[in-house]
Amino acid sequence: MTGLPPPLVVTMGEPAGIGGEITLMAWLRREAGLPPFFLIDDADRLERLGSSLGLPVPVQRIGTAEEAASAFAEALPVLHRPLAVPPAAGRLDPANAPRVIAAIEEAVGLVRAGEASAVVTNPIHKKGLYAAGFSFPGHTEFLAALAGDGARAVMMLAIPGLRVVPVTVHMPLRRAIATLDTAAIVATAEAVDASLRRDFGIARPRLSVAGLNPHAGEEGSLGEEDAAVVAPAVAALRAAGVQADGPVPPDALFTPRARAGYDAAICLYHDQALIPLKALDVDHGVNITLGLPFVRTSPDHGTALDIAGTGVASPTSLMAALTTAAELARNRAAASP
Amino acid sequence: MTGLPPPLVVTMGEPAGIGGEITLMAWLRREAGLPPFFLIDDADRLERLGSSLGLPVPVQRIGTAEEAASAFAEALPVLHRPLAVPPAAGRLDPANAPRVIAAIEEAVGLVRAGEASAVVTNPIHKKGLYAAGFSFPGHTEFLAALAGDGARAVMMLAIPGLRVVPVTVHMPLRRAIATLDTAAIVATAEAVDASLRRDFGIARPRLSVAGLNPHAGEEGSLGEEDAAVVAPAVAALRAAGVQADGPVPPDALFTPRARAGYDAAICLYHDQALIPLKALDVDHGVNITLGLPFVRTSPDHGTALDIAGTGVASPTSLMAALTTAAELARNRAAASP
Repeated sequence: MTGLPPPLVVTMGEPAGIGGEITLMAWLRREAGLPPFFLIDDADRLERLGSSLGLPVPVQRIGTAEEAASAFAEALPVLHRPLAVPPAAGRLDPANAPRVIAAIEEAVGLVRAGEASAVVTNPIHKKGLYAAGFSFPGHTEFLAALAGDGARAVMMLAIPGLRVVPVTVHMPLRRAIATLDTAAIVATAEAVDASLRRDFGIARPRLSVAGLNPHAGEEGSLGEEDAAVVAPAVAALRAAGVQADGPVPPDALFTPRARAGYDAAICLYHDQALIPLKALDVDHGVNITLGLPFVRTSPDHGTALDIAGTGVASPTSLMAALTTAAELARNRAAASP
Repeated sequence: MTGLPPPLVVTMGEPAGIGGEITLMAWLRREAGLPPFFLIDDADRLERLGSSLGLPVPVQRIGTAEEAASAFAEALPVLHRPLAVPPAAGRLDPANAPRVIAAIEEAVGLVRAGEASAVVTNPIHKKGLYAAGFSFPGHTEFLAALAGDGARAVMMLAIPGLRVVPVTVHMPLRRAIATLDTAAIVATAEAVDASLRRDFGIARPRLSVAGLNPHAGEEGSLGEEDAAVVAPAVAALRAAGVQADGPVPPDALFTPRARAGYDAAICLYHDQALIPLKALDVDHGVNITLGLPFVRTSPDHGTALDIAGTGVASPTSLMAALTTAAELARNRAAASP
């Protein structure tokens, strides 16, 4: 290790969405304590976007990631990767899809080569990418594939005071129940436990595992899965030395008192995790991919095509993603020197 | 109408639980703006409880509900209904179960006779009552049966700034999905709409109806029910003049901005409603039964057998239930003079 850690690399995301403008806004607020970062994007379109929205951001084209750290104080450093066509706010253009994908691949290459300390991704629009041959349900799975070698990517969402991890994510609720699986709960919770130690610097992580049914099944009268599927997962985790409790009645898991008692909540389906998180704080959510050989975060929102180009989007979630990425990268570097 | 409205009637609930002590504590805080109320309970056991917990509450035996209003400022008015055996904190005794049930029946009789303005119920323990022949899933269904004549009782839970109504309540999640039904969503939402006008004094209530699947099904790729079952319910409600929107992606329904845009959220299953409510505020939740010919509220917690008799229970939820009951009774009286 020589001096400062390398800067963070930020991907362009969907150029018809809000990624560009929130990145410009974040840079303007860099003195709020943001770590140095650079962007893989079309420098020309960023300059036009800044002018049209009245965001006074000098864009500096850099040749290598190394130049970013010194440039960052005075300008937004950009690895200039021209788009095929100038993006129109809110309108997906398949011609640009390959560049969106290439930016993610390049970012992963840079962080794996040690030139960037972590990847922060702006939101992509899957539909816009499928035409270009993108075949993943989302960023997380694509990153796992880029990481190669069977990386088990696990999605964590975090706000100040609450981290949640859904065991199942983008599938119908009916299917999430049908595929509920002791082994998947155990594997997810073990990945979370390992990441809390390595990336979050928590020596003895405490996990709470949600039940599935009202009152966690109330001894079987409100459903069998809590006793049949979730309780054995908690037992297996404890036997493996993981501090886990549960199944916790889902509506008791997120009270202020309950939240103070664990480092992460393991949830069984998408909305069990996302409803409380967004109810409590929709502005500072960070999406963190655990289990990759590099640190990756993203803001916890989408491309917001409906408001792109208007300047009303908020950079707070991206700013939280940047800060979190730098912290995790620092912890991970300290844990495996 | 002659002068002041009648007092509220409060039931004893499970005497081995926290009902007695939180009612004593609420009376001690009556100057926080509590409406006058009286309790149907065993006056002797309340006096013992007050002494043992150091709660200086004079208990006044009253003969009729009418005496309660004038007594309330100086003492807790009690319609003395002796228990069969002195209750032991935390230990259910089937000998007392018939008195617990009788108190609820008597309270309903008093409110229907106009001697009380609303019923506030302390928590019961269903298991403890089944032995006495109680055959209802809970208070709500029992009250609907007492109301007679096909009353459709609908459970609303409220905290300051959020009202939620689950269309399905105490059943396995798998069954809640399987029995999801357009007509039930419509009937529930119509009952909520009517109650918001009559009981809450809201001239043009706005309802938001939750979706079932992640992202409300994302045009079918994440589940069919949102389009097949929920959307037709919203369409039918709008056709009937109810201001409803949805299906709203469940994780978007409870953000601070979303909450500001509706008067009640119609939810499809227990935890979809209860998770955000308890995450936001577990101390001031009120359970309100809509659709009955009288006003009934209760605190949004159980008997808490594990802490009963220790004095650590909080009366805040009961106090919110008392205040809410008085407001609703006042609005309902004004709406149907």
